[in-house]
Amino acid sequence: MTHPLDVDDLRARVGKALAAFLDGQAPSLDAVGPELTPALSAAQDFLLEGGKRLRPAFAYWGWRGAGGSDCDEVVAAASSLELLHACALIHDDLMDGSDTRRGNPSVHRRFAAMHRGERWHGAPESFGLSAAVLLGDMCLVWADAMLWGSGLDPAALVRAQPVYDAMRIELMAGQYLDVLEQAVGSSSVERSLRVARYKSAKYTIERPLHLGATLAGAGPATVQAYTDYGVGLGEAFQLRDDVLGVFGDPSETGKPAGDDLREGKRTVLVAEALTQATPAQSAAVSRLLGDPRLDAAGVSTLREVIVDTGALDATERRITASLDAALGALDAAAADGCIDGEAAGVLRELAVAATARSV
Amino acid sequence: MTHPLDVDDLRARVGKALAAFLDGQAPSLDAVGPELTPALSAAQDFLLEGGKRLRPAFAYWGWRGAGGSDCDEVVAAASSLELLHACALIHDDLMDGSDTRRGNPSVHRRFAAMHRGERWHGAPESFGLSAAVLLGDMCLVWADAMLWGSGLDPAALVRAQPVYDAMRIELMAGQYLDVLEQAVGSSSVERSLRVARYKSAKYTIERPLHLGATLAGAGPATVQAYTDYGVGLGEAFQLRDDVLGVFGDPSETGKPAGDDLREGKRTVLVAEALTQATPAQSAAVSRLLGDPRLDAAGVSTLREVIVDTGALDATERRITASLDAALGALDAAAADGCIDGEAAGVLRELAVAATARSV
Repeated sequence: MTHPLDVDDLRARVGKALAAFLDGQAPSLDAVGPELTPALSAAQDFLLEGGKRLRPAFAYWGWRGAGGSDCDEVVAAASSLELLHACALIHDDLMDGSDTRRGNPSVHRRFAAMHRGERWHGAPESFGLSAAVLLGDMCLVWADAMLWGSGLDPAALVRAQPVYDAMRIELMAGQYLDVLEQAVGSSSVERSLRVARYKSAKYTIERPLHLGATLAGAGPATVQAYTDYGVGLGEAFQLRDDVLGVFGDPSETGKPAGDDLREGKRTVLVAEALTQATPAQSAAVSRLLGDPRLDAAGVSTLREVIVDTGALDATERRITASLDAALGALDAAAADGCIDGEAAGVLRELAVAATARSV
Repeated sequence: MTHPLDVDDLRARVGKALAAFLDGQAPSLDAVGPELTPALSAAQDFLLEGGKRLRPAFAYWGWRGAGGSDCDEVVAAASSLELLHACALIHDDLMDGSDTRRGNPSVHRRFAAMHRGERWHGAPESFGLSAAVLLGDMCLVWADAMLWGSGLDPAALVRAQPVYDAMRIELMAGQYLDVLEQAVGSSSVERSLRVARYKSAKYTIERPLHLGATLAGAGPATVQAYTDYGVGLGEAFQLRDDVLGVFGDPSETGKPAGDDLREGKRTVLVAEALTQATPAQSAAVSRLLGDPRLDAAGVSTLREVIVDTGALDATERRITASLDAALGALDAAAADGCIDGEAAGVLRELAVAATARSV
C-alpha cells in the first residue's frame, strides 16, 4: 500500500528523534560503566530498525486534529510512545518465551546468546531473563524522560500525565488479563475481545490520540470524537493482528508461521472457531493449540478449523464493520469541526493502513 | 534503637499516603476487570506491611533541609519512591529466583502458588514470572502517577524530572551490572563497590535527597552538600546490607540465613575475603558460593572464611569510616547554612539508623 507523504515524513522524523534521544543516553550509561554499552545497543537495534510508528502517528495527528501546530517538540513527545512500546514488547516476548521479534532474536534470547558466547557462569537463560526485565524497565523510564524532556509546555505535560498513566496501566492490566486467559483456558469471545481492547486497541489508537489531544489542550468534544473513532479502529486493528498471527506471511510479520497458535493465544479468532466447532474440530484445537512443538502440519490443521468453522469470515466481517464505524465517526467529527480537516484526512489513511491485510 | 518522633511520624504518614493512593487505583483496575483484584492486593500487601521507608525519608528531609515547608503534597511525592522500590524488589526477586521477601513469598512465588491452587493450564512458574514482570511494571507507573499527582507545583515537578529519571536509570543500570558481575564471576573489590554505589547507595540516599532538594528549588551548594553526605552514607548503608545478608538474623532480615551466599552475590565482603584468602579458603569459596542447595554447614564455612580472612573487620572499619565522613559533611553543611539545622539533626539520626548492626 502507499502512504501519503505526511505519513512517511512523520515516520522519518520519529526515527530521527528516537536516534537522537538514544544517542543522548550514552554519556549517563557510560558514567555507570562501559558494560552498559550492549544494553544501549540492544535498545538502538530494537527501536531504530523501522516499524510502523503507529502510536506516535496517532499521538501526533491527535495533536494536529485538536488544533496543535507542527513542531519538533510534539514529534519528540509522540516518539516517546515507541519507547513505551519497546518495554511492552521486550517484556511480552520474555513472558511468551518468543524466540524472535521482527525477524531478529528477542532481547532475552540476544542476551542469553551473549552469555553463551562469553562462556560466563550460570545459566544463559537466567542472564537473558534479567537483561530483558531490566532493558524493558529502562525503556519505560526512557519513555518518560523523552516525553518530559520534549520541550513542550510544563502545564501541558502535567495536564496530559493522567492520560499517559491511564494508558500505561491499561496496557499492563490488559497484558495480565491476556496471560490469565491463557492460564484459565478461556474460550469466550467476549473475554477475548476485552483483552484485545485493553492490551492493544485502546493503547495503540485511542489513548495516543487522547494524549496528543490533551497536550494540545483539546476540549471534551474532540476527546470524545477520538474515542468514537479510536474504539472501533482499535478493535479492527487488533482483530487484523490476530488474523496475521495465524495466517500472516512470516517475511512480513517477522514471526514464524502460526506463532500465535504455538503460543496458545486465546484470540477472538480462536474463540469464534471454538463456538462453531464440531466435537472433532474442538478436539483438534484442544490437542494442538499451545503445543510449543507444533509443526507445519499442525498449523495447517488449526488454520483449516478456523476457516471451516467460518471464524475467519466472521472475523473479517467484524474488521470491516468496526473500520466502517470508525471512519463514519471520523467524518462526522470533521464535519462538526471537532477534528481539523487535514488531520482527519490523514487519520483516515492511517485507519486503512493499520487494518490492511498485508503488513 | 529509638527514633526521634519525627522519623516515626513521617513513616506513619508515608504508610497512609500509600494506602490512600493504592485505594484510589482500584476503580481504574476494576474497570478493566475484576481479575485485576489479586494484582492490586499483592501490591497492597507488598507496600503496606511496613518497612523502613528510607527513601521517602531522605526525599522528605532533603526537601525540608533545602528550606521546604512540611505539607501533605511533599509527603505524597516522597512516598512515590516506595512504589519505585517495589518495582525494583519485585523484579529483583524474580531475577534472583528468591523465594521470600520480608518473610513472605516473593511476588512470582505468590502468583505461581495461586496458579497451582486454581489448577490452571501451563506451568505455574511461567504464570508467576509474567505476573511479577507486570506487577513490577505497574508499580513503576504508579510511582510516576503518585509523584505527578502529588499536588506539588508543575514547575517544581518538571524541574525535578531529570533527577528522577537519572535515579531510575542508575538503579536499573546498577542492577544490570550486578547481574553481570555474578555472570562474569568477578572478585574485584573496586567493581563490587561500583555496583553497590549505583544499585543501592545513590538510589537510596543521594538521589532521594536530590529529588527533595530539587523539588524545593535548592541551589547548587545544597545539592553538593547532599552529595557529600549521601555518597559516604550510601556506601556505609550498602556495606551494612552486605554484612546483614551474610550474618543477619533471619527474623530481622526476612530472608533465610546466608541467602546472599546461596545466591552467589559478589559483594564487597566476599571480594575482600577473596583478596586475603589462602588457597584452601579460596577453594572453599569457589565450591560453596552460589550453590543453590547450600546448607547450614556450608553457610558456616563461608562465614568462617569471611571472619578469618579479616574481611568482616575490614568491612566494619569501612562502614565506620564512611559513616563518619558523611556525618562530618552534614555538620559542615549545617554550619554553613546549606542545610537547615532541624533537618540536619534528623538526617544524622537517619544515618545512624540506616547503618545500624541490627535492622
